[in-house]
Amino acid sequence: MPTLRIALAQVNSTVGDIPGNTAAIRRWSKRAAEAGAHLVAFPEMMLTGYPIEDLVFRNSFVDASQHALRQLAADLAADGLGDLAVVVGYVDADGPAAISADAAPGIGRRDASALLHGGAVAATYFKHHLPNYGVFDENRYFEPGDSLTVVRLGGVDIALTVCEDIWQAGGPFTAARRAGVGLAVNINASPYELNKDDVRLPLVQRRAVEAGAAVAFVNMVGGQDELVFDGDSMIVGADGELLARTPQFSEELLVHDLDLPLADATPNPEGSTDAAKPRVEQHIPDDMSIDRVTIPGALAPLNGRITGEIADRTSDAEEIWNALVLGLRDYVDKNGFRSVVLGLSGGIDSAVVAAIAVDALGPDRVAGVSMPSGYSSEHSKDDAADLAKRTGLSYRVEPIQPMVDAFLANMALSGVTVENLQARVRGVILMALSNQDGHLVLTTGNKSELAVGYSTLYGDSVGGFNPLKDVPKTMVWELARWRNAQGDAPIPENSITKEPSAELRPDQRDSDSLPDYSVLDPIIKGYVDHDLGRAELIAAGNDPALVDRVLRMVDLAEYKRRQSAPGTKISGKAFGRDRRLPITSRFREGGAISPS
Amino acid sequence: MPTLRIALAQVNSTVGDIPGNTAAIRRWSKRAAEAGAHLVAFPEMMLTGYPIEDLVFRNSFVDASQHALRQLAADLAADGLGDLAVVVGYVDADGPAAISADAAPGIGRRDASALLHGGAVAATYFKHHLPNYGVFDENRYFEPGDSLTVVRLGGVDIALTVCEDIWQAGGPFTAARRAGVGLAVNINASPYELNKDDVRLPLVQRRAVEAGAAVAFVNMVGGQDELVFDGDSMIVGADGELLARTPQFSEELLVHDLDLPLADATPNPEGSTDAAKPRVEQHIPDDMSIDRVTIPGALAPLNGRITGEIADRTSDAEEIWNALVLGLRDYVDKNGFRSVVLGLSGGIDSAVVAAIAVDALGPDRVAGVSMPSGYSSEHSKDDAADLAKRTGLSYRVEPIQPMVDAFLANMALSGVTVENLQARVRGVILMALSNQDGHLVLTTGNKSELAVGYSTLYGDSVGGFNPLKDVPKTMVWELARWRNAQGDAPIPENSITKEPSAELRPDQRDSDSLPDYSVLDPIIKGYVDHDLGRAELIAAGNDPALVDRVLRMVDLAEYKRRQSAPGTKISGKAFGRDRRLPITSRFREGGAISPS
Repeated sequence: MPTLRIALAQVNSTVGDIPGNTAAIRRWSKRAAEAGAHLVAFPEMMLTGYPIEDLVFRNSFVDASQHALRQLAADLAADGLGDLAVVVGYVDADGPAAISADAAPGIGRRDASALLHGGAVAATYFKHHLPNYGVFDENRYFEPGDSLTVVRLGGVDIALTVCEDIWQAGGPFTAARRAGVGLAVNINASPYELNKDDVRLPLVQRRAVEAGAAVAFVNMVGGQDELVFDGDSMIVGADGELLARTPQFSEELLVHDLDLPLADATPNPEGSTDAAKPRVEQHIPDDMSIDRVTIPGALAPLNGRITGEIADRTSDAEEIWNALVLGLRDYVDKNGFRSVVLGLSGGIDSAVVAAIAVDALGPDRVAGVSMPSGYSSEHSKDDAADLAKRTGLSYRVEPIQPMVDAFLANMALSGVTVENLQARVRGVILMALSNQDGHLVLTTGNKSELAVGYSTLYGDSVGGFNPLKDVPKTMVWELARWRNAQGDAPIPENSITKEPSAELRPDQRDSDSLPDYSVLDPIIKGYVDHDLGRAELIAAGNDPALVDRVLRMVDLAEYKRRQSAPGTKISGKAFGRDRRLPITSRFREGGAISPS
Repeated sequence: MPTLRIALAQVNSTVGDIPGNTAAIRRWSKRAAEAGAHLVAFPEMMLTGYPIEDLVFRNSFVDASQHALRQLAADLAADGLGDLAVVVGYVDADGPAAISADAAPGIGRRDASALLHGGAVAATYFKHHLPNYGVFDENRYFEPGDSLTVVRLGGVDIALTVCEDIWQAGGPFTAARRAGVGLAVNINASPYELNKDDVRLPLVQRRAVEAGAAVAFVNMVGGQDELVFDGDSMIVGADGELLARTPQFSEELLVHDLDLPLADATPNPEGSTDAAKPRVEQHIPDDMSIDRVTIPGALAPLNGRITGEIADRTSDAEEIWNALVLGLRDYVDKNGFRSVVLGLSGGIDSAVVAAIAVDALGPDRVAGVSMPSGYSSEHSKDDAADLAKRTGLSYRVEPIQPMVDAFLANMALSGVTVENLQARVRGVILMALSNQDGHLVLTTGNKSELAVGYSTLYGDSVGGFNPLKDVPKTMVWELARWRNAQGDAPIPENSITKEPSAELRPDQRDSDSLPDYSVLDPIIKGYVDHDLGRAELIAAGNDPALVDRVLRMVDLAEYKRRQSAPGTKISGKAFGRDRRLPITSRFREGGAISPS
């Protein structure tokens, strides 16, 4: 039984940065070779970054990917790595057909995996199952492949698969069983969701047993716009045993020695290896053909034996904190911003965003601005200053009253218009600092506030990135307590414990306008994240009057957003795709709404 | 040969307004019956509005559609319309399975057509071809039907089809030929695009000849968020002859008498009617089964003969103007706004938006605000006042200098930051008026400006609806000239002829920063709308230096937008879906960009 030393490169690619991603592949391949690996696998679309969205319709981009793949194979050989099998994701195309978003979907574009060896592209495989739900739109962008690629490397048969191939029954993993492979390499760009790691492991285990083969699952790590990829790469044996697993949210090279069955000298006829494999209940037909490629030569002998670690999982709060830090850092760095700026109110939301920003970027790259008005309490100003002191971020104070007064002196404004005016003057100040100093403006509204519309358009909603957009208020507090328990306690205790207030009029409290967050958040989760209707929410045990009140607030918030900001919608789920609800709609669970 | 009097109800539905849409169906069905029609056809998803997007994941919504359809059938009979065959689009589901956006795509949801007769749902059909390109995401939302429904009405066989079924070869129209139908009813929600009417007619003609059957094509009319549906309903004979066609952009009832072949008393075996039909070159296999429903009784005898009109087509400028007026009117009215407000600079863009708004809503519902600064020229103020006088909109002047000065006195700002500050103060004023008086704020930036980033985020970009978002500057001028030639000339001649300027610093001109719009617009069209790369744009005859300059501006504009407003992207095409480009991307045709 040959032993294959496999390396999984859980690394961070950037969309569109083909030269940078190529350099990373060469760098990590070198590390894998130095560890004695026979094969190293990189994530889905490593060469181009993921997701490339409408870039796929640009011929010049697809050409660049195809060309870079061939050049990479040659460069790896020039680096002395020609004997290392390198599995890498890229975008391929069947031909130079000029297409656009208006043409039929994804004609000739392929989400592809290649195995590079000996200075050449030895084998390619096209993703078969294209996800078109949640954050994925792959039916729009790609054509599915219909054959499985099996590469014989050192006498071991290895199937190439991509991401969603492992999430759906049938197709490549069924074909892999029929082909009698010893290992399936599954390359991924699988976005982070809370507790998704608890779903992935049993899934990979099930597919391993179904295919009767070991599975090497490698996932991307890093932030890309509103997505975060968490890694969580792993190796599972043909019997479903977890053999090795990486930590989440960091770049890792997982190296592990796998004893794999020697393939028959000739490809097996249909199903002939099946008897030797564990029985599985599920027999799903597949109609994929099998393409076989043989790389001549035996596996290089190994010095000793390497067993990969099995990293511990972390708490929900730690998992979310790490995701928010990574997502913010990559948004800032990949877009080339030197620094960020945010308003510090002394409240919990801006304090948590500031702590995330300092963890992500360091205090020298974070600017905080206190913008007190006549309604700001002393403790608000004190807590903002305290936060600045604890974190070491750069801090300034810009009182807003003179600007607010200039508007009030020249226009006859009253009521909630004056509350919104204060928030908008703050927005203008933050944007002026952004223009002047090149900062990215961070927004600090949490998901609960956004869902019920407790914020001002073009006011506290100003900014290019909002780490809390998908974090409910109750989780904001939990994150603050978790972070403060990690030693240095960046967040003032008073910001955590005091009653929330927008401070836009005298003695204002969130509780004047909103139900308690502990009862609000579960209703938002059901209505916004899970599309439950009024009757279903009441059946789930929520108070009927409260359900009516909250649904009406959410409906009204969506209505108000459209009054002023086209396309401003809240997210359906953490780190997920925004809900795409019609802006103009009269279907409202919360009852009819008339304009303000 | 029986004569079927068919009525096509080109009407305006509202997403989510099931009661209102139902009432419209009953009203227009009554009109069709009064005209002696045997059958009236309504657009795709008439009952629910289109597109319903993620509302499809809400069980309560799908339940409401199913229930309303049955109630509608009963109500029509109660109205004395039980003998009229009513074809209507709605959303159906195979069962009450609870699904969400995270589940597999569109499980059990159907984009459906029903034929109502005698107080009941006599037949249903599920759309077979689901478009998933351009503005469409139907693979995400629906499952495709795989059988064709043929209804025998008064001895005539009629196939039910939906929208995309007519745009793709194979499937329902091939099955319709095999089934030997005399008529195919195709119900649509087909969005307006410039010159799309020139594409639809030959398409419908081709399918009629392929199916060997007359085709009745009925399309929705009206605005829905960023889409406009133009109608353009038509009837084409089995030989491809255009028999009747509605005007675009208005509600219409097209009534026409069609002589149709009597179906055999028993359903025809496979292909037996084929010999009697015109030969077609294309023979595409279809694997759809055919469901047949017979409605007993003969067609009611007709009094006289009705021939529908063939409406003339209009010029590009008239077509676009009508689309913009309808789109704005429906956005305002369907969302329940009493009025709109916009800034009037004296320039061409705001003048054209004001004229569109007055045409859509009448002058009493349009408020214009002149917001001069120290840099505003006398002619700007005069031209804004002249526009107000010509159109009769309500007009006020709010000088911005006191507010701008308050910021400048309290913060050290300079350069382009001060230019942006002026635009943002104007945004705050418009939002204050919106809050105070309930206006919808209209944005006035044209597509050329937006593409190259010649605008201020949270400044002149403030607003809930922008009629010119997809209209290039050269077309803005063309629209102004066309509109002024229609008699009342709402737009001051000086606004059309003067050199464009943002007036944010002394003697500023667009031409200081931008190429001439006549050379800029074609490059934007190629790069943004058609995904052409640098090499392709140069090969198309554009000046290389100019291509480099424009591509760099567009790339930089996309970069700057992300600095401040997540998800703010420009549209790929007129009245179309926004481009979905990764925010973080380093693939730039215009070369590398470093942050401001």
